[in-house]
Amino acid sequence: MPATLDLYKMYETLTTEEQQIWQAAQNFVDKEFMPIISAHHRDATFPVELIPKLGKLGFLGSQLPEEYGCAGINNRAYGLIMQELERGDSALRSVASVQGALVMYPIWRYGSQQQKEHWLPQLAAGEKVGCFGLTEPDFGSNPAGMLTNAKPHKDGFLLNGSKMWITNGNIADVAVVWAKLDGKVHGFLVPKDTPGFTATEIKGKFSLRASITSELSFNDCFIPKENMLPEAQGLKAPLSCLSQARYGIAWGAIGSALATYHCALDYSKTRIQFDKPIASFQLIQQQLVEMASDITHAQLLAFRLAELKDQKQVRPAMISLAKRNNVRMALNTARTARNILAANGIVDEYPIMRHMMNLETVITYEGTHEVHTLILGQHLTGVSAFE
Amino acid sequence: MPATLDLYKMYETLTTEEQQIWQAAQNFVDKEFMPIISAHHRDATFPVELIPKLGKLGFLGSQLPEEYGCAGINNRAYGLIMQELERGDSALRSVASVQGALVMYPIWRYGSQQQKEHWLPQLAAGEKVGCFGLTEPDFGSNPAGMLTNAKPHKDGFLLNGSKMWITNGNIADVAVVWAKLDGKVHGFLVPKDTPGFTATEIKGKFSLRASITSELSFNDCFIPKENMLPEAQGLKAPLSCLSQARYGIAWGAIGSALATYHCALDYSKTRIQFDKPIASFQLIQQQLVEMASDITHAQLLAFRLAELKDQKQVRPAMISLAKRNNVRMALNTARTARNILAANGIVDEYPIMRHMMNLETVITYEGTHEVHTLILGQHLTGVSAFE
Amino acid sequence: MPATLDLYKMYETLTTEEQQIWQAAQNFVDKEFMPIISAHHRDATFPVELIPKLGKLGFLGSQLPEEYGCAGINNRAYGLIMQELERGDSALRSVASVQGALVMYPIWRYGSQQQKEHWLPQLAAGEKVGCFGLTEPDFGSNPAGMLTNAKPHKDGFLLNGSKMWITNGNIADVAVVWAKLDGKVHGFLVPKDTPGFTATEIKGKFSLRASITSELSFNDCFIPKENMLPEAQGLKAPLSCLSQARYGIAWGAIGSALATYHCALDYSKTRIQFDKPIASFQLIQQQLVEMASDITHAQLLAFRLAELKDQKQVRPAMISLAKRNNVRMALNTARTARNILAANGIVDEYPIMRHMMNLETVITYEGTHEVHTLILGQHLTGVSAFE
Amino acid sequence: MPATLDLYKMYETLTTEEQQIWQAAQNFVDKEFMPIISAHHRDATFPVELIPKLGKLGFLGSQLPEEYGCAGINNRAYGLIMQELERGDSALRSVASVQGALVMYPIWRYGSQQQKEHWLPQLAAGEKVGCFGLTEPDFGSNPAGMLTNAKPHKDGFLLNGSKMWITNGNIADVAVVWAKLDGKVHGFLVPKDTPGFTATEIKGKFSLRASITSELSFNDCFIPKENMLPEAQGLKAPLSCLSQARYGIAWGAIGSALATYHCALDYSKTRIQFDKPIASFQLIQQQLVEMASDITHAQLLAFRLAELKDQKQVRPAMISLAKRNNVRMALNTARTARNILAANGIVDEYPIMRHMMNLETVITYEGTHEVHTLILGQHLTGVSAFE
Repeated sequence: MPATLDLYKMYETLTTEEQQIWQAAQNFVDKEFMPIISAHHRDATFPVELIPKLGKLGFLGSQLPEEYGCAGINNRAYGLIMQELERGDSALRSVASVQGALVMYPIWRYGSQQQKEHWLPQLAAGEKVGCFGLTEPDFGSNPAGMLTNAKPHKDGFLLNGSKMWITNGNIADVAVVWAKLDGKVHGFLVPKDTPGFTATEIKGKFSLRASITSELSFNDCFIPKENMLPEAQGLKAPLSCLSQARYGIAWGAIGSALATYHCALDYSKTRIQFDKPIASFQLIQQQLVEMASDITHAQLLAFRLAELKDQKQVRPAMISLAKRNNVRMALNTARTARNILAANGIVDEYPIMRHMMNLETVITYEGTHEVHTLILGQHLTGVSAFE
Repeated sequence: MPATLDLYKMYETLTTEEQQIWQAAQNFVDKEFMPIISAHHRDATFPVELIPKLGKLGFLGSQLPEEYGCAGINNRAYGLIMQELERGDSALRSVASVQGALVMYPIWRYGSQQQKEHWLPQLAAGEKVGCFGLTEPDFGSNPAGMLTNAKPHKDGFLLNGSKMWITNGNIADVAVVWAKLDGKVHGFLVPKDTPGFTATEIKGKFSLRASITSELSFNDCFIPKENMLPEAQGLKAPLSCLSQARYGIAWGAIGSALATYHCALDYSKTRIQFDKPIASFQLIQQQLVEMASDITHAQLLAFRLAELKDQKQVRPAMISLAKRNNVRMALNTARTARNILAANGIVDEYPIMRHMMNLETVITYEGTHEVHTLILGQHLTGVSAFE
Repeated sequence: MPATLDLYKMYETLTTEEQQIWQAAQNFVDKEFMPIISAHHRDATFPVELIPKLGKLGFLGSQLPEEYGCAGINNRAYGLIMQELERGDSALRSVASVQGALVMYPIWRYGSQQQKEHWLPQLAAGEKVGCFGLTEPDFGSNPAGMLTNAKPHKDGFLLNGSKMWITNGNIADVAVVWAKLDGKVHGFLVPKDTPGFTATEIKGKFSLRASITSELSFNDCFIPKENMLPEAQGLKAPLSCLSQARYGIAWGAIGSALATYHCALDYSKTRIQFDKPIASFQLIQQQLVEMASDITHAQLLAFRLAELKDQKQVRPAMISLAKRNNVRMALNTARTARNILAANGIVDEYPIMRHMMNLETVITYEGTHEVHTLILGQHLTGVSAFE
Repeated sequence: MPATLDLYKMYETLTTEEQQIWQAAQNFVDKEFMPIISAHHRDATFPVELIPKLGKLGFLGSQLPEEYGCAGINNRAYGLIMQELERGDSALRSVASVQGALVMYPIWRYGSQQQKEHWLPQLAAGEKVGCFGLTEPDFGSNPAGMLTNAKPHKDGFLLNGSKMWITNGNIADVAVVWAKLDGKVHGFLVPKDTPGFTATEIKGKFSLRASITSELSFNDCFIPKENMLPEAQGLKAPLSCLSQARYGIAWGAIGSALATYHCALDYSKTRIQFDKPIASFQLIQQQLVEMASDITHAQLLAFRLAELKDQKQVRPAMISLAKRNNVRMALNTARTARNILAANGIVDEYPIMRHMMNLETVITYEGTHEVHTLILGQHLTGVSAFE
């Protein structure tokens, strides 16, 4: 098993079952993913063949009930999976997050029985891939301003508008698309071959390169009535999905930080300068200590959040705190690790530069750092400072 | 009860008994201490009359066994007491830390049965006061270099040397003094009226003003054999006391931060500028959010540390991490609070400047920030970078 | 002469006359001020007997013309005086700033010929002391909201309202008071014994202790017509005074930083731990390097600003940049120096804690850090974000 | 001309000639380089066809005398060229730095008359390309430890060893290689087709992608006597070249920061969220203000350094200060700009991610941040803390 910094012995509190799930995730990442990620990162491709394997391992929508083919595990075990996937690459965790938290979760929570039965087992198995269309080109931090709209048409709706920065847009079999109907936000399931629906891959990304990101556009795209999510009304439906995803990111960020921290630690113990390992210099130790201390905070936040989530005591502000803190922590950790590796920090022989680049996306998506600052600010003061 | 930021609902996990102890500490601080601290801070005096009250409440050496008149409580309850005392003032917590962790603890752990029976009940009751003499003028971060020494003389020893920055030195009935005997560190109990022992108060402090700090000097000071701590041999004995004290500081720092955070939060909600409360400005919210996020980390560290300590799984590096992080956090929080209060932040009508000044000591004593960096650095890398 | 960090050889560019003025200021501070400041800081008093000496040396209103008894020197020489006075203590520089930039400057710029002839020579000589009343209890960052007002009455005005945080309020012979007359801000000269005018000293400050700070109140206080500043109309008049004062603060902050930097450097070279000077540890060198690098930036800003001011090219945003940066720099430098001195950093045997405490005021007055952020933000973006 | 932040009106102090050179560099970058950089960055290639154009413009070895075909300009004009080239891309400035400061400079300063006459005009014209071989795989921060060595052989030397992270190694016509001869460092000119000399391009870089970086290896590579630099003896010869290069980097970093700052400023003024430009939010203004303030410091450092260098008053510690500060500033600026652009910050439609990635190399090469900290620390304290 890979080294996992555990200064406060949190992982020793895992149950046997959680330990096994954790180990399965570690094995998968180390054996199936690490050998190929560097090439995919260079080429800006995602190893789509891994999606069914993720499904087989129960890593897609893991918290949803077994009746729909899901693993039905608790939030701690789910968090550990996210941690390990992002120890591999943020792109890998993103794929699992999108599938589980942004596609399967809304179908399960807001969908009809028929929608659930049709989609959830296939999505859980990784036989089908989904994507989540909320963000628009001009509405990133303010989804309430969305322009995409649905108009009643025959036995369904005509969908018009566009969505931006959509993970897996080009490989998705189904898109969960949010649009305004009579001024109120609703969710629609849009299969990939629907006329009027096109997805265009975004090129030239230097972050999450091993992830497919797309722009979706809908041009008088007809959606039959039964493809609307019946229970989702208003913006709080897609926001509840974001909460699920952010929870996973809070765990995932720890994985990324563990990857870069352990790489820097190992490097510092073997890299000799002035006849001794650089780990013996005060300026290097200080950097390692800040990393390890910050990772420990992030772990405590994530473990406690899992507990609160399992007890249904979690609130959006708690998740904002953990997402905001842990991703910034992971980004700082990657930057520090990059610095410790000096010249070796810029080549893809080491995972560091890749993680550092990835985290620039992770700190932005699912609520930028500033958005989470203002969510928390409102929670603490009772006053909104968004506008 | 005073407001206590609890974003991750940690205080809701307290047992009824812990809740009661916590409340007793809050009441004591709010009713007995808050009304007088400002005057003591101005005058640079400590309210010695409170020491027996601390004793009566069981706040001195609270974790030690009841057979010696102590409260025998667990580490979480003890931590909560430290938190509340330092919410009052770092000087108040320091007095309790010195008495409990640095005087009673070594007597209990390293003392003879007779020493325990003689001193512990009186110290627990606050009828007697103790101090701890380890640091020397030229040996702050490197206690191993101490010059104070004991030489065999008749049925005891002659003690020579001096100790610096000793809390309560001038009011102590007994000093636990560490000195080298044949090159090995030993502990000695030195009653206040021992010939050759003098204590001089250090004046002109602008930190921990409400605390008495002294220089001790020993000039052919005769110590009878039975005043040596029989079980303490080598530097690890006083270092084990520091671990106890640092644990309490890690909790205490949270109390200080809660005091300055809540003051700044309340101020920001009522202070109007440009026709609205300053809490509604993004630049103010950002500062409050950083404070609240950092306090949450510190709370998680402290609660977990208590658990590990109760399970006897705690290691010095864990305590270093929490002391280092939590005190820096409290200092940053005080500085930010000072900034939010603007001009009002500099007057003692508010507790902020006092806490900010105090924490400059707290970040230095019981191991400076740098010392804890290097303790952790050594723990992580396996290499010492002290020298 | 005291050591002055000069990594970029800026002080070597001084003219002979500037050198002489600089030296006179250094001598004054070292010989007349340093020996007494510690006691004044402890007692919270200002050495008023030094004011005439400042006058004799030409340090009050130094840039104003010689015809009014002023020194008529350039902005660089004036800056060097401010630097040296604040190397002594921010309180000393504050007194000179208030007298020169906030009292003499508005009289010179906005006053009648008679006002100039009456007040400027006495103020320049330090025979009379002035104060500046702009800030009000509820209007710190937003002076436009002031409530103090003047109503026409006989051959003058009745002044009502109160002013807060007024340096030298209790020792001033004359107050320059800003009040609204028919909704427009005007300036009034209020002699100390004017009926209805009272000044109350603010107690319990733990910053700028060696400075007198007062609340002024005006209760139907009659001001004869000839005491109004005829040329000052609107808020831009008092704001122009603030620009003068902020310019001086930008230089003064360097002086404070030089005091704490040199103290920490000297300490680190003589303090031995682990058998070598702490200056030889990487963690200490890093702190010294940050201080020295930041001081160098501040010096370059100040020297360039002097040049631009002499060429009448200076703009408020430039001054905001230097005030904001240099005071934060000085505060950070003091905090770092405090840390390097460890326990010795908290006693007034060293100047460090005093400077650190002082700078909490300096970063707040004449525009808080946030206010200058928003002044600059507006300058850069063209959009105001104040409200 | 492109926008150039100039809060302290430094660029207004340029002479007409300096203005013209500056403009020529701006034109070249904007017209010849900006249209192609994005593609080269994607493909990890350098536009070698631009090298002769750089030569024609006088941008290669610009400060060296005209008798060798160089421009013979002053240090300020040279700095402005570096600024503009790095505003394009750090790779472009690196090519000019290597050619001018690391190849032409040592030939000019340490070479024979014949070496100068042969190489300088061709290198100045960009007809030939050079590289600089100092760093070795195991000796980055400590070049004194180099293993590459030369042994006398017939009328010359046999060179053995390897060099790492060599910019332009694969396209260079000549390498300036540093090796030990009898334990003392000497410089050798190694033409590209010398038997035993091979260059291997380093792949998988995610920083300075538009730059060719190589490993050089020398295997009994015969160097005729006349290819040794006669005047270079000891490590101070290559270190003097590094000083030249670092000076250019201090300027170049400003160019990179100007690129990312102006991009973020423009974006913030046009990007609408919550119905107003994001430039009107306090949290965004604060970020822009820090960037602009830091760029201003860097400009003042660079302009003053140019003056000191032209007056031959420059010292290595001054250059270390500017290199260390300005590159960290540029990196922070790029990171902040990335954040302001949110999702758009990760695509190469904008230059920001590219600059951010590049600067990870720039902060490492020619002395890491830590190395410059310790150079400055030694300068300030008189004690070395390198080992």
